[in-house]
Order: sequence, then structure tokens, then C-alpha cells
Amino acid sequence: MEDTAAASLPARRPVVALLLYPGLTLLDLVAPYQALAQSMDVHLVWKDLEPVKDDIGVEMLPTTTFADCPEQLDLLLVPGGSGQVEVNGDDEVLEFVADRGARARYVASVCGGSLILGAAGLLRGYRAATHWIARELLAAYGAQNINERVVIDRNRITGGGVTAGLDLGLVVIAEMLGEEIAKITQLRLEYDPQPPFDTGSPEGAGARLTRLVRDDFQAFVGQLADVANTLPERGWGRAREAVRV
Amino acid sequence: MEDTAAASLPARRPVVALLLYPGLTLLDLVAPYQALAQSMDVHLVWKDLEPVKDDIGVEMLPTTTFADCPEQLDLLLVPGGSGQVEVNGDDEVLEFVADRGARARYVASVCGGSLILGAAGLLRGYRAATHWIARELLAAYGAQNINERVVIDRNRITGGGVTAGLDLGLVVIAEMLGEEIAKITQLRLEYDPQPPFDTGSPEGAGARLTRLVRDDFQAFVGQLADVANTLPERGWGRAREAVRV
Repeated sequence: MEDTAAASLPARRPVVALLLYPGLTLLDLVAPYQALAQSMDVHLVWKDLEPVKDDIGVEMLPTTTFADCPEQLDLLLVPGGSGQVEVNGDDEVLEFVADRGARARYVASVCGGSLILGAAGLLRGYRAATHWIARELLAAYGAQNINERVVIDRNRITGGGVTAGLDLGLVVIAEMLGEEIAKITQLRLEYDPQPPFDTGSPEGAGARLTRLVRDDFQAFVGQLADVANTLPERGWGRAREAVRV
Repeated sequence: MEDTAAASLPARRPVVALLLYPGLTLLDLVAPYQALAQSMDVHLVWKDLEPVKDDIGVEMLPTTTFADCPEQLDLLLVPGGSGQVEVNGDDEVLEFVADRGARARYVASVCGGSLILGAAGLLRGYRAATHWIARELLAAYGAQNINERVVIDRNRITGGGVTAGLDLGLVVIAEMLGEEIAKITQLRLEYDPQPPFDTGSPEGAGARLTRLVRDDFQAFVGQLADVANTLPERGWGRAREAVRV
């Protein structure tokens, strides 16, 4: 066989849906998108095809509606963002995530996207990662929080906050298409990170900076806890106990 | 003074323009966007406000036209992507980049965006970084290639390929707003990278994988060299010698 990058690709490109929603954190979505889209067919799905605004104010266009999204996905991936409060209050979105997630070969999330998977009942009994600010919330969905960058438990692959989407994207490719394609993708993206500081985790950042950021997120985490508490009566998430933050 | 994250911010948020163009690599743009937009006012600029498609097929909406873009920017940042061949053949875009770049407090690029800065004459006599696949092209613009993740030379800050936009975004924040804000931003983005492989650079990936990716990019690099050779007669870039790849 000829030794080319293309020679390592499967005959059929995997079919992927990335959930787009108002108030998502754009990098949660675009980091894995950039890795996955080199060797997979990627749909950006939302209720309709109108522009969707991220949590700062930039708009992207969905490519596919919930109704037109392939039923049998190789991968469903859900990003986080401040809009996840509204998403977890929206039965139409949770029904889409629960339906496609239950059938998908792999189900993944970046950052607070794991709370959306959890609300849709997809993380009950699974180990999972999320943004460090939201770790305590995972238990409400019957998931066990693991403080790792990327957590694989059977066919659920969940990542930590925002930039973890890059590591996760490459891990997903390695799982689905093998290490050769993942390694080539990493080289194409020149993913040889050199963070200027050691403050990317609470452990590295230390108590003072961690408290500053935690204070900034406090109201948001409270909103996430509030919406989590509405899920059982709405038939979602199977919260085992009320969430108090 | 109260010890909050907001207390470290300047009274006036810096004004930033990120160049959007058809065929850009989306992560080149979104990685620094996500870091910068937390403490700066970010415009996504293009000729008009119609959706702009990236080099895979996803569309984003510009927020600001060239005509409406503030004249005096604190930062102009240019991403790379396969569309840079067309951009470097488009005098209207180069005129915008040259004009705003000459006045901006800082001028930055990610990946092949440095070749656009170079074409607009903004890197003559500067040290600069670019995607590893394009390193040999920088000399055509009078720039000296430096094989580093992020290169700062006076007010020019240039990054390596694609994912270098994250490191660059944080370095830019540290330069413009100080290390406290950059460190907080890194914690918010949980930028504590754990790449699954050591293949993010040619040195790490080794000769075989590097050759595979170089082969994939060969035609593209040839197109970049071709358009670089048209610049002198069009009055741009001041190429010192013909580019042969």
C-alpha cells in the first residue's frame, strides 16, 4: 500500500454531529471541529439554520437541523457555554441529545457540555470530566467526576474546560480511526503547546487566582444548579439528590 | 483596591480587529478570539457582512466591514488558512491590512497569517513565526523565520501553526494588559494542555509522518510561492528574491 496520509483513512468517513446552541463557548466547539473535520463529515446541528450567537457575540451558521440530522451518528459531541442553562431547560434540545446520543457509536463533550449530556440522562453510571468550576455538579446526573483532561468510559469521552477540546478531539480520532490519523492530525495542527504560564488548572494557578475566577463564575454555577433541580420533575437527568452550591 | 478579577482590567478595553476571510482556518481565528474577547472589544472584519466560509465549509458572520473598522486599533490579528492564496492576490485586502497594521499598537498573526502580514509589507526586517510547512516562505517578505511557538519582535507578535493561537492569545494579553489578566484567562480556559502524542512538531513527529504531511501540503505551498512572486509587480511585499519551493 502506498505510504500516504490518505492511505490510513477508512473507506467511509465517520459522520459527526456537533451541537450548536445560543450561548455556547465557541472554542469548546471549534477546537474539536478543527481536528475531527479533517477526516470526518461534520454537521453543526441546531433547531433551525438561523445564525447562532456564542456567549460573547459572534455568530456561526448551523449546517443541519435537528430534523435533518442523521439518526445513526458515529459521534455526537456537545460543547459547553453559558447558554447551557437555557439548553438544560429546553426539552426539545434534551430530546434531540438523548435520542441521537443513545444511538451514537460515541458520545463526547467538552467543558460544561458534560452537564448537557448528564441532563439528557447519558452519563448515569459513567465516569466523566467537565470544566473545573462545575465538577461538583456532575454527581447530580449520576456521573462520577474524574479530574482528568479527557475521560474515556466505554463509549463516553468527556473533556475538561474549553481548551481540553483539542486533546479530546485527538483522543477521539485515535479511538475511532487509529493512532496514525490522530498523530498526523496533531502535526497538521502543529499542536505542540507551550502555555506561557502554569495557571491552566486550579492546582497550578493557586488559591488566590482560583478564588477570583470562582467568584466570577459563582452566579452561573448557581444557575446551573437551579436548572439541574428542575430536571427530575421534567423527567430528565434522574438527579439523585438536590444540588446545593 | 478590592481583589477581584475585574479590578485588574484597564478602564478602557483594547479594540481588536481579527481578519475574517473565505478559506481561513477557523481555529487560527477562534483560539485567540476566545482568549482576547474576555478582556478586549473584538471586531471580526471583512469586506462586507455576508457569511464567510472557512477552509472546510463552516460559516461565520463578520461583525464589521473594512470601511467601518476603527482606524486606530490596539491590535490587528490575521489568521492563516488555504484562502490566504486568494487574499494575497487581492489588493483590497492587502490595502486594509497594510493601513490598519501600520497604525495599530500591536500586529499579530497565527499560522500562515504571517504570510499575509508579510505580503502587506508589515514584516520587513522583523523576526517572525509561521506554520512549520511554510517556514521557507517568510524570507520572500524580508522576514527572518524563527522556529518558535510565539515570536515577539517590537510590536509584531507572530505564532506557529493553528493551535499556536492559544499560546499567542495569552502572550498578547500579557503584553497588552499584564500577566495577572493573562493568568486568569488561562485558568478560565483551563489551558493545561495534555496532547495525547508527541507529534505536534516535525521534530517530535519524525521524518516519516513529516513527509506525509509535507506531501499533502506540497501543492498549497507551491500556490503560496506563486502568489508571493506576483507581489513585487503589484507593489506589495518587496520580495527580495523569487521564491522557489
